Amino acid sequence: MDEENIYRKQTFGTKTGFGRSPALLVVDFVNGFVDPEIFGGGNIAEAVNATVPLLSFFRGQGLPVVFTRIVYADDGADTGIWCEKVPRLRELIELAPASQVVGELTPSSGEAVIRKTQASAFFGTHLSGILKAKGVDTLVIAGCTTSGCVRASVIDAISHDFRPILAADCVGDRALGPHEANLFDISEKYADVLSASQIIASLRR
Amino acid sequence: MDEENIYRKQTFGTKTGFGRSPALLVVDFVNGFVDPEIFGGGNIAEAVNATVPLLSFFRGQGLPVVFTRIVYADDGADTGIWCEKVPRLRELIELAPASQVVGELTPSSGEAVIRKTQASAFFGTHLSGILKAKGVDTLVIAGCTTSGCVRASVIDAISHDFRPILAADCVGDRALGPHEANLFDISEKYADVLSASQIIASLRR
Amino acid sequence: MDEENIYRKQTFGTKTGFGRSPALLVVDFVNGFVDPEIFGGGNIAEAVNATVPLLSFFRGQGLPVVFTRIVYADDGADTGIWCEKVPRLRELIELAPASQVVGELTPSSGEAVIRKTQASAFFGTHLSGILKAKGVDTLVIAGCTTSGCVRASVIDAISHDFRPILAADCVGDRALGPHEANLFDISEKYADVLSASQIIASLRR
Amino acid sequence: MDEENIYRKQTFGTKTGFGRSPALLVVDFVNGFVDPEIFGGGNIAEAVNATVPLLSFFRGQGLPVVFTRIVYADDGADTGIWCEKVPRLRELIELAPASQVVGELTPSSGEAVIRKTQASAFFGTHLSGILKAKGVDTLVIAGCTTSGCVRASVIDAISHDFRPILAADCVGDRALGPHEANLFDISEKYADVLSASQIIASLRR
Repeated sequence: MDEENIYRKQTFGTKTGFGRSPALLVVDFVNGFVDPEIFGGGNIAEAVNATVPLLSFFRGQGLPVVFTRIVYADDGADTGIWCEKVPRLRELIELAPASQVVGELTPSSGEAVIRKTQASAFFGTHLSGILKAKGVDTLVIAGCTTSGCVRASVIDAISHDFRPILAADCVGDRALGPHEANLFDISEKYADVLSASQIIASLRR
Repeated sequence: MDEENIYRKQTFGTKTGFGRSPALLVVDFVNGFVDPEIFGGGNIAEAVNATVPLLSFFRGQGLPVVFTRIVYADDGADTGIWCEKVPRLRELIELAPASQVVGELTPSSGEAVIRKTQASAFFGTHLSGILKAKGVDTLVIAGCTTSGCVRASVIDAISHDFRPILAADCVGDRALGPHEANLFDISEKYADVLSASQIIASLRR
Repeated sequence: MDEENIYRKQTFGTKTGFGRSPALLVVDFVNGFVDPEIFGGGNIAEAVNATVPLLSFFRGQGLPVVFTRIVYADDGADTGIWCEKVPRLRELIELAPASQVVGELTPSSGEAVIRKTQASAFFGTHLSGILKAKGVDTLVIAGCTTSGCVRASVIDAISHDFRPILAADCVGDRALGPHEANLFDISEKYADVLSASQIIASLRR
Repeated sequence: MDEENIYRKQTFGTKTGFGRSPALLVVDFVNGFVDPEIFGGGNIAEAVNATVPLLSFFRGQGLPVVFTRIVYADDGADTGIWCEKVPRLRELIELAPASQVVGELTPSSGEAVIRKTQASAFFGTHLSGILKAKGVDTLVIAGCTTSGCVRASVIDAISHDFRPILAADCVGDRALGPHEANLFDISEKYADVLSASQIIASLRR
């Protein structure tokens, strides 16, 4: 409560709303991030399920959808310091089952699937240009994990001057404490945080 | 505890250590982020104090030091979506007292002071090149806020393949809950987290 | 002639045209790049003159205008390899007369003036975000030198997925051979090349 | 001659030399850029041949080697404005023979092969981090075309504060006029230009 007062007084948490042209970014919803034996666990599987109708809505409206996967070279030639910090990341290679988008959210033709090697969907990728070429100004973000690649992608989304909208029930994490803590930070500093149904209702208008 | 088990099993939190050539990055320790009436509060003032000997050590060793300040154009011509999210950011203009590095840490000649407009010290700046030109491979990070510009800069530091070392007592935040939550995330995913005295001891060897 | 046949067959030089929302980028038209005793000479002064009515048109239409200047720290703390390649670049510091936008094109309130340290207006700057925040999809480019900062900025403009339009009579170079050679390359690979009057006529429609 | 005087007086063309840790970057030497019926022609095939001993030398010394290929999604989901400027670029998809590195220079295990969608090897890729993680400070550049992806990559190499060395006989272009004009620009503004044998001799010392 007291913390929220500090944030309010310092003007954090102002809503930035929707622009004219939204896209959906689905961050790292791959098999290895759902499986608790690899990088999954917590509420990630539920977040995948909650993303199904959101993805369906974007497709129904003909709005752009982009997916990301973490992918390193088979021989590790493009790994770096992050793979020293989290060594199992090196297992995420092009054809590894762990590195494929989950079946429930299989990408359709025309939906870019971006390979990335760092936490943010924008870092070392052409995501910003892909979205700009489509005239996108607003980025609805689903995926995992909230405290990892989602948080990093949200920061970069607003840094690239997109309007970020976090789909709160469509993001998940292996542990719920960091999930909640990061939803708070994101809401105060970087994105409007709305449920999938609120997002759909807003875009329908 | 249980959460830590999940993280250990998934190989998070591995130490990346020091490379051969460290630099110190001091993020946004400006008057306006110490003053609780603007963007300060919490343990930020203490973090400034703890940074004094760390900075002194780097200077004594002749190691590179870089500072950042958030600076927007006087007329707001370079503001964007982040200034809609946190409107008071617009007050941080070139000559505003709030936007000057705190007196305790006044930059010396030869220490770059980088203007930035986004959370990360790397985003839309030449920080990466400045460090590369000096042969830096390891980045010790102090500054504020832990949950804001420090976290964003740490993510970008490892994404740019620097070895990030967070100086735990030299980072602060306006509210302690987010401070602690972000130290946890950073330690697990992006940086070694050490005290200033541990860092100094490691670099002395 | 023969070369042009090769380029045509390989589909180079296709027009990309104007999008819906243009901005004007004025690259490095500062005193030091007009003065032949510093970095100027050739047809740069003429290019400045040709830019006056183009700038006036953008202002009259209320369209965004952004300027760039090369600026290094007074103590050289942010210089790097490019300043080894071209040592006199270090003279371009914040208050140096050589580093101020020429009087004929003095920036107005609300027009961002971006400090840069590399050839491209986009590199290590927030230019892309500034344009995105304004909804810009098309970048008309004037400035100098054609073979240097203009060429580099044009490449980055299309790489960032803006539609680049080079204002042929509003770009200049210290030597005419490289000027002409770069106009050819730019036209074939990266931008539509039009005169200021053609650009104004197109935008009037 | 007169032009060279202008450049000398303005301090262009200063040598930046070799640092301590070089890597070899091979830009876009793929089948489609050798074949004159696709994007090839001119002196590109000769440049491939001249690169064979240079690559062999780097491998023999255990120095890092990185290749690039232009690769777009099969369904064109990640194409943008550059593919409007040069429409045949869209043919360069993952498994197209035109998009595979030429047989003479087949990448070895441990040599990163980077997919890119823009002219520069650095743009929207993780090349900078891959090199930084290996401690590289000097980038020897071979590939094609001199006036296209090589020139763009050289500009970004120095902008990222690597020391660029252009291997003059190991770069080629579909037309010789632009090849020569770009060697001049690159030599004056961005890189030391040396033959492969000079580079090998320098690195042997």
